[in-house]
Amino acid sequence: MTNAKPASLPDPPYYAVVFTAIRTEGDNGYAARASEMLQLASAQPGFLGVDAAEGADGLGVTVSYWRDEESIASWRNHARHAPTRDLGRERWYETFAVHVAKVERAYGFTRPQI
Amino acid sequence: MTNAKPASLPDPPYYAVVFTAIRTEGDNGYAARASEMLQLASAQPGFLGVDAAEGADGLGVTVSYWRDEESIASWRNHARHAPTRDLGRERWYETFAVHVAKVERAYGFTRPQI
Repeated sequence: MTNAKPASLPDPPYYAVVFTAIRTEGDNGYAARASEMLQLASAQPGFLGVDAAEGADGLGVTVSYWRDEESIASWRNHARHAPTRDLGRERWYETFAVHVAKVERAYGFTRPQI
Repeated sequence: MTNAKPASLPDPPYYAVVFTAIRTEGDNGYAARASEMLQLASAQPGFLGVDAAEGADGLGVTVSYWRDEESIASWRNHARHAPTRDLGRERWYETFAVHVAKVERAYGFTRPQI
C-alpha cells in the first residue's frame, strides 16, 4: 500500500512544467538539495502541486503545476533555485528536457470504495 | 548504465498528455495490454514520443507528446484503445488524473562528452 496519489489541482487553465532527466552516477549532494528545492517550490506563490517518479531504467519524470507564467518565472529566478539549476548542469544530470505547457483540460478517476 | 533518455521532440508548439496513476494490486492483464497500447500509440499519426516512470511509492507518471488536438482525439477514440481505457477504470487503476496541455516552449541539456 502507498499514500502516493496524483496531485489535487484546481480546474484548468493552469500550467504544467514537465521535467525529464537522466542523472549522473552517484549522489553528489543531489538528494539533499532536491528535497530542499521541493520544500521551497511548494511554498512559492502560484505553486499548485507536483507529480514525480523515477523508474528502474533511470529516467526521472517530474511534472510541477503552476497557476500562471509569472509564478513559473518567479521560481525559475528564485535566489536559491537559480544557482541550483546551474549545479544541475555541472553535476547532477547527464541529460534533461523541460516542456512548459498550458493545461487546457483535465479529468480524473478514483475507484469507488465499496 | 541505461539507454533511457528523454523523448526527442520537434520544436513547440505540440501537445503533452500527462497521465498520473496509482495501480490496483496485481497485474490482472495490465502489463501485456500496456505494452500493446504503447506499440499501437507509437504508430498513430501525430504521435511524437513518450516519457514514463513508475516510482517505488507506486505513482506512475507518463507523458505522451502529440502533434495536435486531432491526433490526441484520434488515439482516444481508437477502436482498440477506447475499450482498454474502460478496462483501466474497471480493473487497473485505483486513481488517475489526465492533463492535456499545449507545450509553448521547451529546452534541454545534454552533458558534453569529454
